[in-house]
Amino acid sequence: MKFPLAIQKLIDQFSQFPTVGPKTAERYIFYLLKQPAENLQKLAQLIAELKEKTIICSQCLAISETNPCLICADKNRSQGIICVVGNTQDMLMIEATKQYNGLYFILGGLIDTINDIKPDQLNIKQLVAKINHKGIKEIILALSPTVEGETTAMYIAKLFKDKNIKITRLARGLPTGSNLEYADEMTLSNALKYRNEL
Amino acid sequence: MKFPLAIQKLIDQFSQFPTVGPKTAERYIFYLLKQPAENLQKLAQLIAELKEKTIICSQCLAISETNPCLICADKNRSQGIICVVGNTQDMLMIEATKQYNGLYFILGGLIDTINDIKPDQLNIKQLVAKINHKGIKEIILALSPTVEGETTAMYIAKLFKDKNIKITRLARGLPTGSNLEYADEMTLSNALKYRNEL
Repeated sequence: MKFPLAIQKLIDQFSQFPTVGPKTAERYIFYLLKQPAENLQKLAQLIAELKEKTIICSQCLAISETNPCLICADKNRSQGIICVVGNTQDMLMIEATKQYNGLYFILGGLIDTINDIKPDQLNIKQLVAKINHKGIKEIILALSPTVEGETTAMYIAKLFKDKNIKITRLARGLPTGSNLEYADEMTLSNALKYRNEL
Repeated sequence: MKFPLAIQKLIDQFSQFPTVGPKTAERYIFYLLKQPAENLQKLAQLIAELKEKTIICSQCLAISETNPCLICADKNRSQGIICVVGNTQDMLMIEATKQYNGLYFILGGLIDTINDIKPDQLNIKQLVAKINHKGIKEIILALSPTVEGETTAMYIAKLFKDKNIKITRLARGLPTGSNLEYADEMTLSNALKYRNEL
């Protein structure tokens, strides 16, 4: 005997979620089976409406409720500085620090030679258009310190190197609260290289 | 800036799934946002219909598509032996071994003094009725080897002790493929106690 078809189909769907295997999917289904029917209806409706109720900001390409998004529409933010991030989640992480008051731009991914993601699959054209148009003075490349992030940063830096725009990236060093003993070599050598004066 | 409301509501829903926190829920939403709209509609429909399309078998109380379920309806299975399990998942695990050809009964949980789950919240009454009615000769208590499983097994064994029914439980010992060196004391002492003749 196998699972009823209605359960098996839902297991197949949840198994495609990132990091979810069939066993975890099963747990989710049995959790859902214990919920009142109206909760399932509500969840189903939220999923069905997810795409209709979210739009892409035409200015920064972030996922948003409004176009332009609240950040792009806020004229109190510095208009001369733009923070380039991989995706909307990364933008929200930086917003959560409350340390940044400029604009954002969502690349929609990172250049990835292994998975064959090329620059023309990212929003690079829109970035160039935006920066030429807006009179941007500084570009902060807030990309992950991975091979993909580095490759993408180098690519973008090259695009704007003759444009008299300051190009910066997030600092490398020891993460706060970490134990020096367990830092990897790359992190530690970056922390040495970019050491600050006290 | 926060997530759009449509996203935040769905994060809240997924965060209630077992083992899912807000960060994992976020990943799920961004995975869903990348899917075509028709996939989301399909997932939504499967969730909405989950409860309607699954029923409880009136004989063994398993989640099923039919009533009685395929196992209870199968007259080729031994009718004199019943395997008592905590839930439908456990039943499917035992079915997957292809070693058992009797009936099942789903308790719907285990007695749990810490979380205040008492015998009357389980399907004990239905179990007693079924066993008295069916002329069962053996009850296999296939419950997890935990405090809750042991408590429940003791409770059920006591109910039927004067009924001239053979009551067995799953064997305790070393799991196949395990390393003796890493076996815990309880497992190893059970493995010694219930050692088999070769």
